[in-house]
Amino acid sequence: MHIRNVKPTDYPTIISSLNQWWGGRKMSDMLPKLFLEHFCETSFIVARDDQIIGFLIGFFSPTITDEAYIHFVGVHPDYRMQGIGQTLYDRFFEIMRQNKRTIVRCVTSPINKGSIAFHTRMGFQIEPQETQMDGVPYYADYDGVGEHRVLFVKHISQDRGL
Amino acid sequence: MHIRNVKPTDYPTIISSLNQWWGGRKMSDMLPKLFLEHFCETSFIVARDDQIIGFLIGFFSPTITDEAYIHFVGVHPDYRMQGIGQTLYDRFFEIMRQNKRTIVRCVTSPINKGSIAFHTRMGFQIEPQETQMDGVPYYADYDGVGEHRVLFVKHISQDRGL
Repeated sequence: MHIRNVKPTDYPTIISSLNQWWGGRKMSDMLPKLFLEHFCETSFIVARDDQIIGFLIGFFSPTITDEAYIHFVGVHPDYRMQGIGQTLYDRFFEIMRQNKRTIVRCVTSPINKGSIAFHTRMGFQIEPQETQMDGVPYYADYDGVGEHRVLFVKHISQDRGL
Repeated sequence: MHIRNVKPTDYPTIISSLNQWWGGRKMSDMLPKLFLEHFCETSFIVARDDQIIGFLIGFFSPTITDEAYIHFVGVHPDYRMQGIGQTLYDRFFEIMRQNKRTIVRCVTSPINKGSIAFHTRMGFQIEPQETQMDGVPYYADYDGVGEHRVLFVKHISQDRGL
């Protein structure tokens, strides 16, 4: 098992995996190929025997120069609960440190309990909101009408040990 | 009528406009809020009397350091054929010159004849491909299975007059 940067030629494999991993939902609108063409330095693949079993697509914000954003993360269903997500996030945090990015943000749907639990374990905090679902604050209509999102934020220490 | 950079608070207006301008199709998956949070310096609004009548969402590629990418452009149906698209593209080309970006790319669906004609008028060239539709080359399955795309490229002269 190894981790490396994504490259544009990974796209067909990732996008076909995604539709399978997410139980048949069409995910390609959310992950157009542009992310694999233009954000390669901040996006990673975990592969095992040349099979892609996990990936993280992120970027450094041009507008907010101390921030980074994680747009999309996926792990093959057969390889979950084995630390692959953590490996991907840790690599992203490491390149943030190298580039003096101190804040990382990402969002998830309030119904995605697995994602909420994972981000909490990874040290993300949920930003307070006026609206809650099962005790979890979410930003109503964040990504359009009906597209509610839980907003996560994590501060990255420059000291790797902390 | 004036042009300005986008800001995150434009998002609800843009996303609700989009669903109307595109005839009811759900567009929010293709334009999550992250684009209006993190690419403000390279994205623009045309407004008239405080009403948003056109917008362009683009970014400078971190991976390909002389390239820029235009992700999404929309013009209100009542204001088409009035040069608003051209105004937005010209502003984007201008900030490319200021930042030494010489190549701009974007993609569209091969069935979107209006977009293909517009980009051709704006000086974009269509990249050659093995597959064609009505004489227009397209990259099959570019953005996932069945998501064919026409790939446009334009070289931006550093001399504004050319």
